[in-house]
Amino acid sequence: MRDSRRGDVDPFIVMDVMEAARQAEAAGRHIIHMEVGQPGTPAPHGARAAVGAAMQSDPMGYTVALGLPALRARIARLYADWYGVTLDPARVIVTPGSSGAFLLAFTALFDAGDRVAIGAPGYPSYRQILKGLSLEPIDLETRPENRLQPAPGDFADLDIQGLLVASPANPTGTMLDRPAMAALIAAAQAKGAAFISDEIYHGIEYEAKAVTALEITDDCYVINSFSKYFSMTGWRVGWMVVPEGHVRKIERLAQNMFICAPHVAQVAALAAMDCDDELQANLAVYAENRRLMLDGLPKAGFDRIAPPDGAFYVYADVSHITDDSLSFCREILDEAGVAVTPGLDFDPVRGGGTLRFSYARSTADIREGLERLARFMARRGLAAG
Amino acid sequence: MRDSRRGDVDPFIVMDVMEAARQAEAAGRHIIHMEVGQPGTPAPHGARAAVGAAMQSDPMGYTVALGLPALRARIARLYADWYGVTLDPARVIVTPGSSGAFLLAFTALFDAGDRVAIGAPGYPSYRQILKGLSLEPIDLETRPENRLQPAPGDFADLDIQGLLVASPANPTGTMLDRPAMAALIAAAQAKGAAFISDEIYHGIEYEAKAVTALEITDDCYVINSFSKYFSMTGWRVGWMVVPEGHVRKIERLAQNMFICAPHVAQVAALAAMDCDDELQANLAVYAENRRLMLDGLPKAGFDRIAPPDGAFYVYADVSHITDDSLSFCREILDEAGVAVTPGLDFDPVRGGGTLRFSYARSTADIREGLERLARFMARRGLAAG
Repeated sequence: MRDSRRGDVDPFIVMDVMEAARQAEAAGRHIIHMEVGQPGTPAPHGARAAVGAAMQSDPMGYTVALGLPALRARIARLYADWYGVTLDPARVIVTPGSSGAFLLAFTALFDAGDRVAIGAPGYPSYRQILKGLSLEPIDLETRPENRLQPAPGDFADLDIQGLLVASPANPTGTMLDRPAMAALIAAAQAKGAAFISDEIYHGIEYEAKAVTALEITDDCYVINSFSKYFSMTGWRVGWMVVPEGHVRKIERLAQNMFICAPHVAQVAALAAMDCDDELQANLAVYAENRRLMLDGLPKAGFDRIAPPDGAFYVYADVSHITDDSLSFCREILDEAGVAVTPGLDFDPVRGGGTLRFSYARSTADIREGLERLARFMARRGLAAG
Repeated sequence: MRDSRRGDVDPFIVMDVMEAARQAEAAGRHIIHMEVGQPGTPAPHGARAAVGAAMQSDPMGYTVALGLPALRARIARLYADWYGVTLDPARVIVTPGSSGAFLLAFTALFDAGDRVAIGAPGYPSYRQILKGLSLEPIDLETRPENRLQPAPGDFADLDIQGLLVASPANPTGTMLDRPAMAALIAAAQAKGAAFISDEIYHGIEYEAKAVTALEITDDCYVINSFSKYFSMTGWRVGWMVVPEGHVRKIERLAQNMFICAPHVAQVAALAAMDCDDELQANLAVYAENRRLMLDGLPKAGFDRIAPPDGAFYVYADVSHITDDSLSFCREILDEAGVAVTPGLDFDPVRGGGTLRFSYARSTADIREGLERLARFMARRGLAAG
């Protein structure tokens, strides 16, 4: 059977850790999961109730390609509520998760061979989806003084057709403030590069509200999802906001590539947007978990971290301990019973010396995980002095 | 904002008809829908019950990329039940609809610029997805004596890297019997072209069981879905069977491009596979509708049709009446109150002289639609003599 070159994307390295964790659990061990990038909570109660009702009254066939009109309007209202931005619902496209939004955006914006800059460290699938679409991902080696976010100087000399940023970012949780976001947008636009803002962790912020690119320009693509703040990863529903002149093009692509986002997930998403009490309670858990992590990780000896502004991750520099983060993660799993993610998925160059800790699960798990990590590091003589 | 060339795919022409139908309904008219390509029935009762139960007991986060193991095993069993084919569940990949399967297959098999042959008439999105991925769709002008299915002679002289067939086909409902399927597979393999079999309408057959490519070879991609026989279009869940050596590659692509198919839809799909009584009752409705169509359409004057072996469409040659099927569809909508699909979506060259009638809805609607069509054609002096 034939085989393509572009389909030869890299495996997720974290999958090896997850498989090892699964085997350990199958063998009877108790593992604390700090590797997972998703909430442990289900979709909000109101969302599930709406699905139960819709299943009785509606055949739930295909929706129109751009999504249920009521959901598009409700999403537009979120931009007024969260950012004070007035947004025409016609520019909102409901997608099969942010994954579907990336496929649509990259196809609408770029031709085979085009070069798209992304920050390293960053979400691993950016790189692989770009490769799968015969595009060339260009890693920008971000700097600690920029809190591992890209800056205009990182791509000033590069020939690129697109720039993709994430704020809050995965794996670091750091955000771009308004001047930093504006500088990146201006620099990209000056080059004629499309600007894509991944805002999937918006709503999960601790010190200040995240900035949407739409506060600064309409000439961008903004991608978001119901997976994180709305606690609906498995439902596969997200959205994208595009310039008015791109809506028809995206509609045609969406009709052909996806037909529509899952109808049942759209019903759930619409109801989830009115479940703020439950979602704010989830957020309070993340905030407490974050407080514990920012206290406990340095005490355990993971002290080279930048406090995350949002999301539910802490990215730690462990390059003084190891240059083989994958093996180090295996040791932590085997000896401490804590699953964490090696940095190599996020940064192929420097990730051998970094780890990502997730605090998306219960506070009890976080407490237990931190204690285990502290004992592990103490045994290794690596605990904070 | 930048714009890609490959993203400039064609609109669905049927969307204009659907919008006109919607406007007519908004203005108070009663329209019979013979344009829609989906069942009017919901997911089976057992599927919806399973979703209700799962929503209470499971957070329904991401599943593994290849799909719930129980669902993969159950799909493998379907091949034993339906075709007597023994299939390793490891080769079954659960996808976000057949749409997701096409994206995965094309990305895994072809590089930018590769040429993939498809039959004309055929499902319009094949052509558009291929274009979106920087691939070149090659239309094979199928012949009436082959019941509008491709034959080896149609591509003997062509440089192609892939061949995609559908049986039963959309828009014709015609099937490839085992010798015809085997001949196409042999001809494609002799050229080193990947063979992809779209089997989305399997289960909706009237005279004989459809043949799966897996009866003939393991060296192919087979794509199917829960949308049609299982009556779950809006749930966006399908599957793909690939050669053993391609599973890891597809897994990596699926992890990055989709993360997973909707968890809730996978739960529904697994339960739907044990709802055969309800699904067979749906099928009995299609069979009765088909009987009415094959009787009523020729009487109305649409007599240039091939009886469909499967699916829920009749494709009619109306080239003796019009070479502008879009305008003709508008007339039928305006004067008869019946929405039908112009052939141009399926065959850009010859589709000006063809129509697709769907009989997926209720039998009462089909009766009423046929009466309206007969009156319309009689007024035009086109009824059968």
